[in-house]
Amino acid sequence: MSETKCTTCNDKDTGRCNTEQCTGSPVLPQNDASDIKQVVAVMSGKGGVGKSSVSALLAIALARRGYKVGILDADITGPSIPKLFGLVDRPEQFNNYILPVKTSLGIQVMSLNLFLPQEDDPVIWRGPILSSAVKQFWTDVAWGKLDYLIVDMPPGTGDVPLTVMQSLPLNGLVVVSSPQDLAMMVVGKTIKMARQACIPILGLVENMSYITCPHCGEKIQPFGHGSVKEAASKKGLPLLAVLPVDPELAKLADAGRIEDYEETSLRNIEPLVEVVEKGYNRKVEGCENCHHQ
Amino acid sequence: MSETKCTTCNDKDTGRCNTEQCTGSPVLPQNDASDIKQVVAVMSGKGGVGKSSVSALLAIALARRGYKVGILDADITGPSIPKLFGLVDRPEQFNNYILPVKTSLGIQVMSLNLFLPQEDDPVIWRGPILSSAVKQFWTDVAWGKLDYLIVDMPPGTGDVPLTVMQSLPLNGLVVVSSPQDLAMMVVGKTIKMARQACIPILGLVENMSYITCPHCGEKIQPFGHGSVKEAASKKGLPLLAVLPVDPELAKLADAGRIEDYEETSLRNIEPLVEVVEKGYNRKVEGCENCHHQ
Repeated sequence: MSETKCTTCNDKDTGRCNTEQCTGSPVLPQNDASDIKQVVAVMSGKGGVGKSSVSALLAIALARRGYKVGILDADITGPSIPKLFGLVDRPEQFNNYILPVKTSLGIQVMSLNLFLPQEDDPVIWRGPILSSAVKQFWTDVAWGKLDYLIVDMPPGTGDVPLTVMQSLPLNGLVVVSSPQDLAMMVVGKTIKMARQACIPILGLVENMSYITCPHCGEKIQPFGHGSVKEAASKKGLPLLAVLPVDPELAKLADAGRIEDYEETSLRNIEPLVEVVEKGYNRKVEGCENCHHQ
Repeated sequence: MSETKCTTCNDKDTGRCNTEQCTGSPVLPQNDASDIKQVVAVMSGKGGVGKSSVSALLAIALARRGYKVGILDADITGPSIPKLFGLVDRPEQFNNYILPVKTSLGIQVMSLNLFLPQEDDPVIWRGPILSSAVKQFWTDVAWGKLDYLIVDMPPGTGDVPLTVMQSLPLNGLVVVSSPQDLAMMVVGKTIKMARQACIPILGLVENMSYITCPHCGEKIQPFGHGSVKEAASKKGLPLLAVLPVDPELAKLADAGRIEDYEETSLRNIEPLVEVVEKGYNRKVEGCENCHHQ
């Protein structure tokens, strides 16, 4: 926990908001080289449910609508974003700031993998260093003018998600899950964590929902079905997208050409894009005075 | 990094082995209430590729062969093991030790989720506390007599995998991946990390390799194919199992009845079980004097 006191709350003298849920630590201000309107995190708790794909597709859809978009890859020890976009250039420095690397569509990307000599070099760091790397991606990167910054979170509820929730001015959180009960349980942890940190949850995305057999055209639901919709309704959250396992997407992702994914295939995520597009200003219940509001 | 010096190396005065790769930190001894013959970790680096399923199936296969088996769930912030086995009992204490919870087949399980009031309560801990929780699962748990302890690792190469590799006397590591290049890149990080820590890698497991269409019986390969086999041969490691996406397994896992998975379906992992069964004593090249040997 940061020792700096919360400066925006009613309770700023104690460093705590006057609600029990709020962590009360200070949000880091934007630097002089950044002007970001909305920050949206994509999270899951469970690994491998497609956070990075959803982050990338959301960014692509927004960029195609004409917005200026960035992706902050907060998955320091398992970063996927550069690979999805085929990015290999090392970020350059300018006036003490680090410059993000641009995709073909003009999406600004910052990821630890862009700094590694080889993409499969491991980053064997303990929590405090992981956290400070993520903070630097916010404080030391010249993001420029962005309509949306998408934060691709790592799995779990450890150091890095905690740091992102406490330090970045998140406007909202998108929670991704596969339709397994097991995944939903871990997703439940994420939802509770977000609520404790006063971060508004925009809604859920069900990924790996089904696969269409290329031989007979029938839909297969390899991980069961219905549990994400049920969980969304139980938690009072909207289900914003239901996405298939798409071998075409896997192939493009492996080739670093995710931006070639067809417009029509992106229709599935339109409700998600619209929610992000219109921005989010709902207060989190019981946390009216919080700095995250 | 632990400050205690390495006591088993030639270089014990410096706390460092005389090979560059070795981390040199001390392995924690077994406690008086544990007598474990082999410790095998299941790891990936990438989340959601089925580490927990592979850990569980390996444990089940070994238990069915008559061995005494335990599972240490090292995925503190995203634990899946209790859910797979339908375990809900809180671990009891006995003589200052924590007792693992037993599955129907008699597999001894220790997981942080067994201590939570609700299974979807988040564990919002920073790295040092996560690491000490994992260490406690080794030092404070009365594992009893075990032929094999399987360690289900969290994704990433952060605090917890690092702690497990440095502190537990691992006899070997099994690396699980799905057949995406993306997953293989992150798996490459795990392999490099294991080699830096002088942990012998038993081999690779390709999970989510294919799905058999229940309508037409054709095999679909949703995430591409061949990359794990290729990577195994490039890295000089055996490919020990190729596992399908099995809706039946997903259903049993969601119902907490993974032990009811049919004997015949376990045949896929026989080469893995046999490698683990015969034990592992190969030295890691260039690390002959290391405490892990």
